[in-house]
Amino acid sequence: MMSRILIWGYGRLGKALLAGFIKYKQNTGQWPLKASELLIVTRKSQINDEIIVEEQFKLLGLKFVYNDLSVEQNDVVFASVPDEQIFEVAKLCDIPNVTLIHCSGSTPLITMDFGNSGVFYPLQTFAEGPMVDWSSIPLFLEANHPKTEQLLLNLSQSLGVFSTQFLPSEARETLHLSAVFANNFTVVMAAAAQDFLISKGLKGEWIQPILKQTACNLPDVNPWSRLTGPAKRGDFATINKHLKQLENDPKLHAIYKSLSEYIQERFQV
Amino acid sequence: MMSRILIWGYGRLGKALLAGFIKYKQNTGQWPLKASELLIVTRKSQINDEIIVEEQFKLLGLKFVYNDLSVEQNDVVFASVPDEQIFEVAKLCDIPNVTLIHCSGSTPLITMDFGNSGVFYPLQTFAEGPMVDWSSIPLFLEANHPKTEQLLLNLSQSLGVFSTQFLPSEARETLHLSAVFANNFTVVMAAAAQDFLISKGLKGEWIQPILKQTACNLPDVNPWSRLTGPAKRGDFATINKHLKQLENDPKLHAIYKSLSEYIQERFQV
Repeated sequence: MMSRILIWGYGRLGKALLAGFIKYKQNTGQWPLKASELLIVTRKSQINDEIIVEEQFKLLGLKFVYNDLSVEQNDVVFASVPDEQIFEVAKLCDIPNVTLIHCSGSTPLITMDFGNSGVFYPLQTFAEGPMVDWSSIPLFLEANHPKTEQLLLNLSQSLGVFSTQFLPSEARETLHLSAVFANNFTVVMAAAAQDFLISKGLKGEWIQPILKQTACNLPDVNPWSRLTGPAKRGDFATINKHLKQLENDPKLHAIYKSLSEYIQERFQV
Repeated sequence: MMSRILIWGYGRLGKALLAGFIKYKQNTGQWPLKASELLIVTRKSQINDEIIVEEQFKLLGLKFVYNDLSVEQNDVVFASVPDEQIFEVAKLCDIPNVTLIHCSGSTPLITMDFGNSGVFYPLQTFAEGPMVDWSSIPLFLEANHPKTEQLLLNLSQSLGVFSTQFLPSEARETLHLSAVFANNFTVVMAAAAQDFLISKGLKGEWIQPILKQTACNLPDVNPWSRLTGPAKRGDFATINKHLKQLENDPKLHAIYKSLSEYIQERFQV
């Protein structure tokens, strides 16, 4: 039975899915799941912002659908929309033999009355910039039915992902929170370091060599082994000097204090 | 006038200086500053821990001195010791024509009565592991005299450092604090991400692909442009879910809260 694949939402994740599926079609001559069509459901304004021309997409057999979507039997719908919009899309997809897939780390598997439901959570960051490499992305999956599980595995395989793992919603929330520390908060510490330098009239670029070296150390299997610095040494004289330097910056002061205490507790200094 | 170079303290920094000076000697046939000798001043126990054999060092014309040091006129002494020991070393070096150099970001230029004083601060992390590459290290220098400034520049050049910059003590303290954010605190966030996963019975390694991608983004000239996540989006529903997950972990809860607030303030969400 021919199904259609719909990518609902054309943000960073929607684009990454699209790029992965186009690559698959270029390699194999067909869409994943042998789908008859691939549709992108979006607001008109989102496309106008893009350099990618709709005409070029037509050559690939892609269709853009603007706001006038009707979901059909056998459709596989990726709700690659902001988390708070997932339920709206899900409602429109609660039709027998339609599969709704969301990609959110912090949203549970959606309970459907008639349709199928799956989760396709890529534990990776999709910042603007170079095209995403699916082979570096571990996927965490969940489904309401063995048939949907198989469908998710087929889609994962088409993208050539790094790994797949079935995981219940609660564990996925743990992963998602962990990713905030691993990605968002590491980047913020680099940004804060630069901002602090610049606020004191020094050059932000002076911090780049140490950031480069730190980047090499970051994915260590044991990041703690890479840690140096006053908190690890239990060098309270330096810690207190630093806190004094941050007296007029309560936010950075609070961050410095809570992180140093976390380190001290770990090393029991 | 022939001087001696003394590396006082054989920790990570002492070893890195030694490796840089040995490389220079291998390339040029002489020690930096045309020094007559290079001595390493250390406690006996520190050397016994090392694989490097004293005999091999003798072939290079290196000497180890254990506790029985007397500083001589024209000596150039690197105090590569823990910060709190720098002043002790400095006292023993306060002799006319002796130059004391410390490498600490958070210690001011030391005032000497008779000797010369300099600072040689490498803004880099010297974790255990592969040998340090001086060409990736920006050096921040300070000296009490133009002659000492020139001596510091000559030493920097011998090591082939990434860049040199004269900077007063106060600005160096700003740099040092900034480096704690750029290096220590980024590494801690990666470590916390892993620990949190493991504490919930999940696999620490699942976070490695996103850490690898994050590492690519870290040395961006504008780290803020690489930021994604709930705090940047102003997604308070997800932030509150995460804070609830951390209810039983007050330290991580405090870190999550202070970092998210810092991001929200930056993006005015």
